[in-house]
Amino acid sequence: MAPVRNAKLLFKEVPKGYPEPGKTTVYDTSDTIDLDTVALNGSILIKVLYLSADPYMRGKMRDPNTKSYSPPFTLGAPIDGFGIGKVVRSEKEGLKEGDIVSYHAMQWVEYMIPEDTSYIEKLDPLPGLSLSTYIGAIGMPGKTAYMAWKEYAKAKKGETAFVSTAAGAVGAIVVQLAKLDGMKVIASVGSDEKVQFAKEIGADVVFNYKTTDTEEVLAKEGPIDVYWDNVGGSTLDAALGNSAVLARFIECGMISGYNSGGQPVSMKNLMKIVSNQIDMHGFIVSRLFSKYNKEFNEVIPKLIKEGKIKHNEDLTKGLEFGGEALLDVQVGNNTGKKVVVVAEN
Amino acid sequence: MAPVRNAKLLFKEVPKGYPEPGKTTVYDTSDTIDLDTVALNGSILIKVLYLSADPYMRGKMRDPNTKSYSPPFTLGAPIDGFGIGKVVRSEKEGLKEGDIVSYHAMQWVEYMIPEDTSYIEKLDPLPGLSLSTYIGAIGMPGKTAYMAWKEYAKAKKGETAFVSTAAGAVGAIVVQLAKLDGMKVIASVGSDEKVQFAKEIGADVVFNYKTTDTEEVLAKEGPIDVYWDNVGGSTLDAALGNSAVLARFIECGMISGYNSGGQPVSMKNLMKIVSNQIDMHGFIVSRLFSKYNKEFNEVIPKLIKEGKIKHNEDLTKGLEFGGEALLDVQVGNNTGKKVVVVAEN
Repeated sequence: MAPVRNAKLLFKEVPKGYPEPGKTTVYDTSDTIDLDTVALNGSILIKVLYLSADPYMRGKMRDPNTKSYSPPFTLGAPIDGFGIGKVVRSEKEGLKEGDIVSYHAMQWVEYMIPEDTSYIEKLDPLPGLSLSTYIGAIGMPGKTAYMAWKEYAKAKKGETAFVSTAAGAVGAIVVQLAKLDGMKVIASVGSDEKVQFAKEIGADVVFNYKTTDTEEVLAKEGPIDVYWDNVGGSTLDAALGNSAVLARFIECGMISGYNSGGQPVSMKNLMKIVSNQIDMHGFIVSRLFSKYNKEFNEVIPKLIKEGKIKHNEDLTKGLEFGGEALLDVQVGNNTGKKVVVVAEN
Repeated sequence: MAPVRNAKLLFKEVPKGYPEPGKTTVYDTSDTIDLDTVALNGSILIKVLYLSADPYMRGKMRDPNTKSYSPPFTLGAPIDGFGIGKVVRSEKEGLKEGDIVSYHAMQWVEYMIPEDTSYIEKLDPLPGLSLSTYIGAIGMPGKTAYMAWKEYAKAKKGETAFVSTAAGAVGAIVVQLAKLDGMKVIASVGSDEKVQFAKEIGADVVFNYKTTDTEEVLAKEGPIDVYWDNVGGSTLDAALGNSAVLARFIECGMISGYNSGGQPVSMKNLMKIVSNQIDMHGFIVSRLFSKYNKEFNEVIPKLIKEGKIKHNEDLTKGLEFGGEALLDVQVGNNTGKKVVVVAEN
């Protein structure tokens, strides 16, 4: 067969504020690949199907000299992240043509050959669930929500949880886990459309933080026993100011600071960490995998299939719009899990 | 016997910034007490000997409408806190004249009759140790240091600890516990005299934060695996900025904010809580008593008597100078545990 196009989304420039499609990332169609003859060297050839666009990726769009928990994207090379694909050819034992695989370092390309196949995971999707579900509710965001909630929330029936970005891929699962644990849930979101969604998934008190004062809502509906933080900044400060004694703060992310160029934030209520004896936990979900992966796979796909945990996906069709998808999750234009559909099968 | 003077240090006015002797607190000698005839109603008559002046007391000098973890001082009534006294008369079983007792709510007076004796603890001091030691290294500061260190530090040999207010009553014990656990210890203090003391007790790197940039020292000597925070504010921010992956932050106090009238602090490095997967623990030591009190009493008095843990006391002689003692611990004029000596026996 003749070579086919192998389009790519390349990381081209470190952004100062929000990532800019066409500047931070550039869609490049100059490369081709011969699917029949390309050398595999013991690896597999993957046709990329679904890619995950996540807030944390902003941290990888940085100067390579700035250290952080995950390596920076390489300038001139494709973006990479969690994704799902289909095996086209295989020289690896246990994987064959047609198998569906997930990979945490899937490149934002049409076809790829991973150098190291040890982290390639073969999926056995439940019938009736879209493959894209394995990017979101059953993928990294679902695992993030479930594993950290189990590890850190110490949820008690009748207590109050506050979840920020509650209509997001992680937040929406957290809201539902808190409800399953019998908690009252206060949810903050960034649009009226998301208010509707957060109510549908069971949050008791929902507000649009752009039009309603977070501090006022928490003062009325708190104090907060568990805070799930995806936001940081003034929302974290308001949560501290309205925390209950012995509150648990789960620090999943601080998106309010990701695009602000390192601007300091002004905090009034840090002393509450001491006076309310707060436990605060930053975490990276991979650290919790070995403890919770089996339990997660037993519990969550079933709850999702039965509709007991609802989820929402926001699909971007076409790798050429990948840059827009990366921006959307920074600005908050997505409702639910942002998935880039490179190909459906 | 004729009535004798019963002098008191009264809480007279909520301070805006630092507490002012003679204004925030007033020494009052107008009261008398007849030691032979005063009614005990089943309680005991205590002659107050040693009183503890602690940074946390600033939090109790507040408007009674502001809620916090410990009740506010009552305007017009004596200051109270941890103290040691001698039983003059007793109607309580198990306590007799001459017994030495400690009490967490000892009034800053010469004589007192506690309404509720259930928290009065009879001491059996080790020979050769001053009673004042039971205010400091073997008292609340020593317990604070020991119990929270054991609970939260997860110390590993060869790791690096950073201790703020390292010449203080709590900090000095923490420095030595970290050294006993085989850690490298970076210590910050507020005067050159204190630099000397922190070196004497074994800290590896000691600096005066008033003349040396905390950020620079930590960048050179870090990253930090355990941070013992007595300070908050910019010191906490610098510690976050130089934290190691999986660092533990023990939030004992944030004195930098106690006298600033609630001014917000500017934080650059909160995101490190997420990216370095930091566990942060606020605590009140009483919560750890049941778990560690026995162990503490077995371990610490012995180590102190043998000189394996050094401690330093800063005595203020005379209840009439109690207001100055309360100010000293806010400004940091004390080196080691500040004890007010009301009477020696």
